[in-house]
Amino acid sequence: MTTGRRADVRATERPRPARQTSPEPAARRAASAAPPTAPERAGAEPGAPSDPDPLGGYLQARAAALLRTLHDHREAAAHAESAADAAEAVRRLRRSSRRIGATLHTFRPLFDPAWAEQLRTELSWLSGTLAREYAYGDRLDRLLAALHRLAHDGGAMTPVPPPATTRRGTAGEGRDRRDEALPAGVARAGALLDRRLTLARTRAHSAALQALGSSRFHALADTLAVLASEPPETRTPEPGEAPSLGAHAERARLRLLDAVDGLPLARSEHPFHAEALARALSAEMQGDSAWLHVRLLLRLHRYAQEVVGPDAQDPAHGTAPGTAYDAALAAAGRELDRHHDAAEAAAAAAAAARTPRIAPATAYALGVLHADQRHEVEAARFAFGRHWTAAEDGRLPDGRSGPAGAVVSRSGGARGRSAARGRATGR
Amino acid sequence: MTTGRRADVRATERPRPARQTSPEPAARRAASAAPPTAPERAGAEPGAPSDPDPLGGYLQARAAALLRTLHDHREAAAHAESAADAAEAVRRLRRSSRRIGATLHTFRPLFDPAWAEQLRTELSWLSGTLAREYAYGDRLDRLLAALHRLAHDGGAMTPVPPPATTRRGTAGEGRDRRDEALPAGVARAGALLDRRLTLARTRAHSAALQALGSSRFHALADTLAVLASEPPETRTPEPGEAPSLGAHAERARLRLLDAVDGLPLARSEHPFHAEALARALSAEMQGDSAWLHVRLLLRLHRYAQEVVGPDAQDPAHGTAPGTAYDAALAAAGRELDRHHDAAEAAAAAAAAARTPRIAPATAYALGVLHADQRHEVEAARFAFGRHWTAAEDGRLPDGRSGPAGAVVSRSGGARGRSAARGRATGR
Repeated sequence: MTTGRRADVRATERPRPARQTSPEPAARRAASAAPPTAPERAGAEPGAPSDPDPLGGYLQARAAALLRTLHDHREAAAHAESAADAAEAVRRLRRSSRRIGATLHTFRPLFDPAWAEQLRTELSWLSGTLAREYAYGDRLDRLLAALHRLAHDGGAMTPVPPPATTRRGTAGEGRDRRDEALPAGVARAGALLDRRLTLARTRAHSAALQALGSSRFHALADTLAVLASEPPETRTPEPGEAPSLGAHAERARLRLLDAVDGLPLARSEHPFHAEALARALSAEMQGDSAWLHVRLLLRLHRYAQEVVGPDAQDPAHGTAPGTAYDAALAAAGRELDRHHDAAEAAAAAAAAARTPRIAPATAYALGVLHADQRHEVEAARFAFGRHWTAAEDGRLPDGRSGPAGAVVSRSGGARGRSAARGRATGR
Repeated sequence: MTTGRRADVRATERPRPARQTSPEPAARRAASAAPPTAPERAGAEPGAPSDPDPLGGYLQARAAALLRTLHDHREAAAHAESAADAAEAVRRLRRSSRRIGATLHTFRPLFDPAWAEQLRTELSWLSGTLAREYAYGDRLDRLLAALHRLAHDGGAMTPVPPPATTRRGTAGEGRDRRDEALPAGVARAGALLDRRLTLARTRAHSAALQALGSSRFHALADTLAVLASEPPETRTPEPGEAPSLGAHAERARLRLLDAVDGLPLARSEHPFHAEALARALSAEMQGDSAWLHVRLLLRLHRYAQEVVGPDAQDPAHGTAPGTAYDAALAAAGRELDRHHDAAEAAAAAAAAARTPRIAPATAYALGVLHADQRHEVEAARFAFGRHWTAAEDGRLPDGRSGPAGAVVSRSGGARGRSAARGRATGR
């Protein structure tokens, strides 16, 4: 494999025939090659019973999907009125990219290590670069909606209509007559956040355009086109090695269980202990990294389950995917996403408050906003604990001890206790 | 009754023989008269089975206790090293004063209305005036402890060592080496709060000293001395009127139930809906008043139960005082106290942030602090809901429907729902 080159390899030095500096030809070729590829391999859908190579089929299908979203994104990004389509394409691109990268990571002993690591790095670069502008937009929406909620009535339980990101200084502007009573700090804080995050978004947009024209992108598109048309070579496991896909998936699951064991779940299940706000005023925030790590491991586990499918699922795990277990895990994952978004938004509010020469009222509003988002971080941790307990209960729907009981009690600790407590209260 | 005069009545105009401008003689006479009074009326302890006049006995005992605390306070306030004793005396003074005032209010049809209203007003004035300096001190301690927690690690679950109120600028000063990394805003916010609240406290101290030397205080002390030595005249209820003490106490209980029905308890029992933070940045906070009203009504109910005692308790109420019901009500009352303290502290942080020409970092820290205290307000509401549900369950310890079931379902609404939910989850 020579297609997955580093970004600093210049186009003029590349020994490959596809030497375009414009993004269209390579991407179009890849995208046009992709749709026929998927139907040709109808048996490659993950989990299909007769699939002789579920791993290769999974990667092929995801690579084809990713190339299609690249095509859709290029079409949508050409017109301003289809901005929503472009955002949706980036969202799907990230979805496919995460799955390919996670699969390459979880099952990495089965691949050529250099190729897998290279592809994973490049996919992470592409999806990160394309997604960044939307992340800034979402963060601004989240912060302006929170400012709106903090300055008006209405709780967080009811969805707050998010202010349009494209407007400038939206937070304090006339939405209804009560806005007249707003302190100036709210409007100024909203305008400051808007300026900062819109600037960051514009820069991210330029970086994304530049990335789509780079030789690094073309090399990645070529690699994906190859992956979409033929399955990657996989090493035949030797007799002494861990043989099955299921064994690798199980390792990913155990890594997740260990990481969740390390979380202060028993504490987070008590609401309102304000742990997520501790050190909110110190120079460095701590305590988020363990949760963000679990977020990554949970993704690896869920995507590995997609690869091995229901048939490859070890019966000792209790229940098959597509059950309450999967639903609870997906909900737990969404809470960790909320944890991530709120923590980033809180950091953005704190960073905005360090802008020189802002008015005290602006800084005050940003302080309230920061604490509000850290409050949301804590709420997400609390909700994660509930979903995680539900996921463990989902493996034992009847509440009796079973094969998974050994797993729950394997490590004891907070997770075992929370599971026992969850069952006792019927959650 | 002419003893309860307004504060603007000058000592020289008073037609009474006790014309001292120094507080000692009247208070000492009252205090020295008090201790013999209580033993003389051993049967006057509330709830004593053979007490022919539980209402008068209750008031007499409380008036005697209040006079003793006035004496203790004067002794302790004379020396700087017994400041803690003085604070304790004020705490007990408020305790007795609240009970006398609540009793005069709940059972007011049984008293001379002008006398009862006058005494209640004067007691409220005295205990409020004496307590104010301690309230400012407690508020400063609470805010500095919260700043400390926000700037260091450690959650609210573990008790935070409160910084000494008497030190100046304590919040950011070297407690350990990590303090070096603290942003300047934390130290400045602590110093600003310290300045503001210490000034308020000093003013309140002067006002308390002035009140203790006023003719208004002497008139009140005389009234209390009379009350401690002989029971107040109570009107004999006419045949058509509500006759018993229990009927008045029951009315107080129903007023409390109605007020709790009006609280958004079903919403507050969902943690992390951030309702208490809504409008935190608007000009006026709303939503606290209903909770503060319930706090007063809960006190009236609890003190009325003390007067009527276990024997006068209506059997239909389910359980007698001194049970889980009482304990849960007391816990609910403590949460409403926390609600009050945190709301006041949040308002103090917001007021400090409006100080002109403060640094943005200071205002930012105060914003975080404000949101943290509003977070505590929400936590107190959540905890109140749980204790309230427990109190209702305490009336029905076995979980079956009984005589109190009619009360629970009488008004339906949030309370009935929350009680049902509480029983379903075994809380």
